[in-house]
Amino acid sequence: MQFHVSPIKSVNLSRLPTLVSTFLASNPTLDLLVLPEVWNSPYATKAFPSNAEPIGSPDSPSLPSPSLSPSVHLLRSLAISHSIHIVGGSIPELGPGGEVYNTCVVYGPDGGMRAKHRKVHLFDIDVPGGVTFKESDTLTAGSNLLTTFKHPTLGVVGLGICYDIRFPEMFLLHASSSTSSRPGLDLFVLPGAFNMTTGPRHWSLLQRSRAVDTQCYVVSSSPARSTREIEEENGRLTAGMGYEGYRAWGHSMGVDPWGEIVATAGEGEENVVVDVVLERVEGFKESVPTKEQKRGDLYTVEKKE
Amino acid sequence: MQFHVSPIKSVNLSRLPTLVSTFLASNPTLDLLVLPEVWNSPYATKAFPSNAEPIGSPDSPSLPSPSLSPSVHLLRSLAISHSIHIVGGSIPELGPGGEVYNTCVVYGPDGGMRAKHRKVHLFDIDVPGGVTFKESDTLTAGSNLLTTFKHPTLGVVGLGICYDIRFPEMFLLHASSSTSSRPGLDLFVLPGAFNMTTGPRHWSLLQRSRAVDTQCYVVSSSPARSTREIEEENGRLTAGMGYEGYRAWGHSMGVDPWGEIVATAGEGEENVVVDVVLERVEGFKESVPTKEQKRGDLYTVEKKE
Repeated sequence: MQFHVSPIKSVNLSRLPTLVSTFLASNPTLDLLVLPEVWNSPYATKAFPSNAEPIGSPDSPSLPSPSLSPSVHLLRSLAISHSIHIVGGSIPELGPGGEVYNTCVVYGPDGGMRAKHRKVHLFDIDVPGGVTFKESDTLTAGSNLLTTFKHPTLGVVGLGICYDIRFPEMFLLHASSSTSSRPGLDLFVLPGAFNMTTGPRHWSLLQRSRAVDTQCYVVSSSPARSTREIEEENGRLTAGMGYEGYRAWGHSMGVDPWGEIVATAGEGEENVVVDVVLERVEGFKESVPTKEQKRGDLYTVEKKE
Repeated sequence: MQFHVSPIKSVNLSRLPTLVSTFLASNPTLDLLVLPEVWNSPYATKAFPSNAEPIGSPDSPSLPSPSLSPSVHLLRSLAISHSIHIVGGSIPELGPGGEVYNTCVVYGPDGGMRAKHRKVHLFDIDVPGGVTFKESDTLTAGSNLLTTFKHPTLGVVGLGICYDIRFPEMFLLHASSSTSSRPGLDLFVLPGAFNMTTGPRHWSLLQRSRAVDTQCYVVSSSPARSTREIEEENGRLTAGMGYEGYRAWGHSMGVDPWGEIVATAGEGEENVVVDVVLERVEGFKESVPTKEQKRGDLYTVEKKE
């Protein structure tokens, strides 16, 4: 799903159910719903702490109260009411020690939390004449590199968030792990919010890179790009909270293991249906068997504990 | 340089001096000349052994005789006569035990061999309805992963050959090694010969991927694409030697560390001048400092001995 994110959290929370219902009404057979990165509040370092919610974890069945964690409860209730798996994009998460993460939570149709991925690589960049952003001003990086969940029809799904995609090591490890204890990882899902500087240059390139490197599908979801009218409104509404006017590139898309873009949105509010044909993956891997051709005698990518 | 490779070795050897002279006459200030993969003989598994030459090594000053190694002597003499560094694309190399490698040799203007890279990842693919090729039928893979040479104006240059580019680990290791004993690796040179199946889909994508992953320049050189007339001639000339009619994609190019294609050839005989502006590299690395942002506490890419 690709939609506008309002600087007012309550607007996003009240709007999401209608957006989801409308999308699913015209696409009733979807297997998985993917939301954008930081869909519930402004993508702005100063706004992350005040909008952060405790999330809990897949291991603990009890959720924080709805008043503390309204976004989490909403995602859970939508998964149940529509009987669908939801990759909840990401939201600012309030950690147990007061630290804040950029976190993706996944719910199944039974209301069970399937996975929680905290962004591992924080987005700190400074492109002269382009974009400057420093997530680490207010965010803490996650330390669980390989987060996955098992989907009944899509198999094992690997999770990353936005800037994570610039680090091939993470995806190579995900893909190589899939031979042993986690068979059949053929799909990465990446909520992301590239910007007007790196978006046109690297958004599709990096998704295609990771797809071809690992011979997996890559599916991304971005917020819709702000229009000038929306930005002006945001400026008025959020003058006191340091909204930096971050403009998302949009272009939520799906890329197949051959590196082809199989579906893509434009810049505005526009959902994309990605046809993930798992039956095709084995064919790609057999045609160009890079996984078996890696020179394990010369190099290795290792996960550290 | 991008030129047609004849199935007749003597034709390629006798043609190269003129091609080089003509190119350098109109571009007298070039710092480095790069030839295509297997520029001296047909790109065909059955043709590799009969065209293989002993090459020697950068550590041993004496070359095999000109009658045994005419291509190597030619590269060396061109480097001397034009006073230029030459990355000699690749040629089939006859190893000491009779094994055959796909090997890139680099000469400096003093006639010294600067480096020798044996293709590490052999090109064995089988795309139904597309290309089928199996280098390992007659070739042996190299075992030196990281081959570099030092160029007076271009710094440390990393070498790979064609299919090597599908293995990010090799390039990540090259780039990470550049911090310590080999400062300043900012350029990869890759002779390659992608084909009509993978060329349009992956040739530029993979070069841009490796450029952005490592924030280095990537420069490639391919043979020109055979025309139908050339293929028909090749068929007549090489009916007895198993010429498979491999058609190169062409499109020799240069990509900057931001992933932009800064220069590219088309499919025919056409040389490309790539402006490698090393002064820009540091800016890219400072703007998007992925090298410092890697999570060394969570993963590592290791070279094995």
